[in-house]
Amino acid sequence: MTSTAPIRALKIGIIGIGVGGSEMLPIMAAAAEFDLVAGADIVPQVREAFTAAYHAKAYATAEELCKDPEVEAVWISSPNRFHWEHTVLAAQHGKHIIVEKPMAISLKEGEAMIEAAAKYGVKLIPGHTPGFTPAVRAMRHIAHSGELGPLQAINITAYSDWMLRARTKEETDFSQGGGIPYRQGPHQVDAARVIGGGLVRSVRGSVGQWLPGRTMPGFYSAYLEFENGVPAILTHNGYGYFLTTEFMPYGANQQMLTTEAKREVRQRLGDGTWDDEAAKNRIRMGGDQAYYASPEFKKKDRWMPSDFGVAIITCERGDIRQSPNGLYVYGDDGLREQTLTYGRLMGPIEPRVELLELYEAVVEGKPVYHTGEWGMATLEVCLALIQSSQERREIKLSHQVPTHPDYDNAPILAKEFGDA
Amino acid sequence: MTSTAPIRALKIGIIGIGVGGSEMLPIMAAAAEFDLVAGADIVPQVREAFTAAYHAKAYATAEELCKDPEVEAVWISSPNRFHWEHTVLAAQHGKHIIVEKPMAISLKEGEAMIEAAAKYGVKLIPGHTPGFTPAVRAMRHIAHSGELGPLQAINITAYSDWMLRARTKEETDFSQGGGIPYRQGPHQVDAARVIGGGLVRSVRGSVGQWLPGRTMPGFYSAYLEFENGVPAILTHNGYGYFLTTEFMPYGANQQMLTTEAKREVRQRLGDGTWDDEAAKNRIRMGGDQAYYASPEFKKKDRWMPSDFGVAIITCERGDIRQSPNGLYVYGDDGLREQTLTYGRLMGPIEPRVELLELYEAVVEGKPVYHTGEWGMATLEVCLALIQSSQERREIKLSHQVPTHPDYDNAPILAKEFGDA
Repeated sequence: MTSTAPIRALKIGIIGIGVGGSEMLPIMAAAAEFDLVAGADIVPQVREAFTAAYHAKAYATAEELCKDPEVEAVWISSPNRFHWEHTVLAAQHGKHIIVEKPMAISLKEGEAMIEAAAKYGVKLIPGHTPGFTPAVRAMRHIAHSGELGPLQAINITAYSDWMLRARTKEETDFSQGGGIPYRQGPHQVDAARVIGGGLVRSVRGSVGQWLPGRTMPGFYSAYLEFENGVPAILTHNGYGYFLTTEFMPYGANQQMLTTEAKREVRQRLGDGTWDDEAAKNRIRMGGDQAYYASPEFKKKDRWMPSDFGVAIITCERGDIRQSPNGLYVYGDDGLREQTLTYGRLMGPIEPRVELLELYEAVVEGKPVYHTGEWGMATLEVCLALIQSSQERREIKLSHQVPTHPDYDNAPILAKEFGDA
Repeated sequence: MTSTAPIRALKIGIIGIGVGGSEMLPIMAAAAEFDLVAGADIVPQVREAFTAAYHAKAYATAEELCKDPEVEAVWISSPNRFHWEHTVLAAQHGKHIIVEKPMAISLKEGEAMIEAAAKYGVKLIPGHTPGFTPAVRAMRHIAHSGELGPLQAINITAYSDWMLRARTKEETDFSQGGGIPYRQGPHQVDAARVIGGGLVRSVRGSVGQWLPGRTMPGFYSAYLEFENGVPAILTHNGYGYFLTTEFMPYGANQQMLTTEAKREVRQRLGDGTWDDEAAKNRIRMGGDQAYYASPEFKKKDRWMPSDFGVAIITCERGDIRQSPNGLYVYGDDGLREQTLTYGRLMGPIEPRVELLELYEAVVEGKPVYHTGEWGMATLEVCLALIQSSQERREIKLSHQVPTHPDYDNAPILAKEFGDA
């Protein structure tokens, strides 16, 4: 926003103030483009903490929030199986929508969401994926700028402790969209599709689940091939032993949890004494470890691999990967660091670009780059990975869409790339 | 060899004293189990240097060497397209055989080699692959020991400057076995098969070639799935921009060549002024940069990723990867370093286990662990990767064999694992 005129703030509500969703609250509260006016959650502790912290209305159900005429847009971070239902509900009430990854847990749900948004004339953005972020957009920008020649290959590798974090019961249910393929797959897939142009031809991969007491998959490895022949290798192992953080020279064998905490979680998951719900409530808003709600969370002076992992983008005359302050760009003259204003992938200290995308689409009539169809194509890849693992064969895709033609003209990278 | 009796030395000859083959000479010369008695090479400079350095007979052709009755065994490191022919020739003359990777460039050739060895009653070991090395054997040992539970996944990633090193004309010919898939593929495939048990079910992958002036593929990424469902992701990018060395905290963006040397090679390959043959002759035996022949080469105090790359082996309760002095073993109590007596993957300062395997098989009647059939199964995976790339589909395999049942009883790891 370069205008000095008063900003027309969009009134937004959040549906599902979970650990992930609450990450958005400080951003919404701080953004001049938004007024955070309401939130809905089934947990009383969370509603109380939300009202106290943000002086906004708290509802016990999504339906009540959607009926609130003051709310113009919603951020949907309810459990995955409700994404389609809450999206359709919000659309029916004329609310514009950002829905977190995974957009849905079946293509049928995704189609219903797209249809509802079209029918009721609201914007729909599947969000909370790295395809919005400066790092991934800059990778795409450089890979398509010609500086390093044509894009040739993508490799994204994550080893995290994601599987050892506290979960609700439904979060650990694969049939409800629990586990690494549904919840982390969209991160790597979305980024690969943004960088690779969107059109994945086929997927071959494997999903793994092996931690006793954790009833959801915690691993996948996948080979994707784009229509133009570019391959992408995507891997996420969330069991928390080796960690991708170790691949940075200043990184150690620790991500979110200490070795001691991980050992305790594993042991108690195994012997049945781990109280997931209680642990989850502690890290929620209003809990005594509600770290996500704190703007200090993830405040680091250098980039560290997150759950997204380490991405290496190969072009004909060079490679690109994340660096302490942005990206390393490797070319014939060695490597240079491309500093990015917002070098981190996601987090409270970085404006969330899906919010800006929604704002500009609703208020300024700009395009939605990450459309419902785009999100459904990412979902299709994740579902194909699961199917490939189950049927032990390559899965061809049929719902892929290309990156928006004006994608690189979004203003997010204007500071770093003057022509963006 | 724990006996104090005089060792019965096996008289060995080398066919093809190229840059790779000459790496073996100091080892053969130093090993009590071998007498290096002859070598064959078409390059006069090499024959002269070989005779001077090792006081051994030098022949201009493989046939002459094979007719030498003193030679009992041969190490075949001739160009890849001659591997089958020289193997059959050596077998016909009753010589035991180690043949470098790739064993051959077609399954038909591989079958002819196996048949010849059987017909003439000689031992045949496809060698020069990391499956022999302490690091890979120890990974397998730990992964199958039960310490970390069942093996679940394999990931081997290499970014090297392999494509920028000097080559003969035939080495850059894909149809003669040139390029990364034939020449580097066997390293990762062999290691994955040793660790994973040998039986690969299918391969899906992509082969890439994009450096102007380098007429052979320099990239692959592949998804393998073993019969038991364990997936393996294998990647090698030899174009020399990002390098896997950077993943070690003490590593930098340099492998074999400096940034300046790489830039010159790329530029001169592109404008046609690069004289590959002349550059190759300089690094051969007798050339002024014959670094491979020096025992000092690769003498490092800490492990660094070689062309083989970084391997991460995932088990149910932990991961394993290479470390400065051996392996990092990650488990519930964090990570420990398993020191290995020979921590490096391959190189002159490390006894080459394929030599010991041949010696013990010929002289002591012990089994050949890496049989012709084993080597052909590794070759089949590499060929399937190439086919998968060309036909853009998953390729099922039909020539796979399991790891030798006594594999873990080979004495190589006895010092580290008392029960080995």
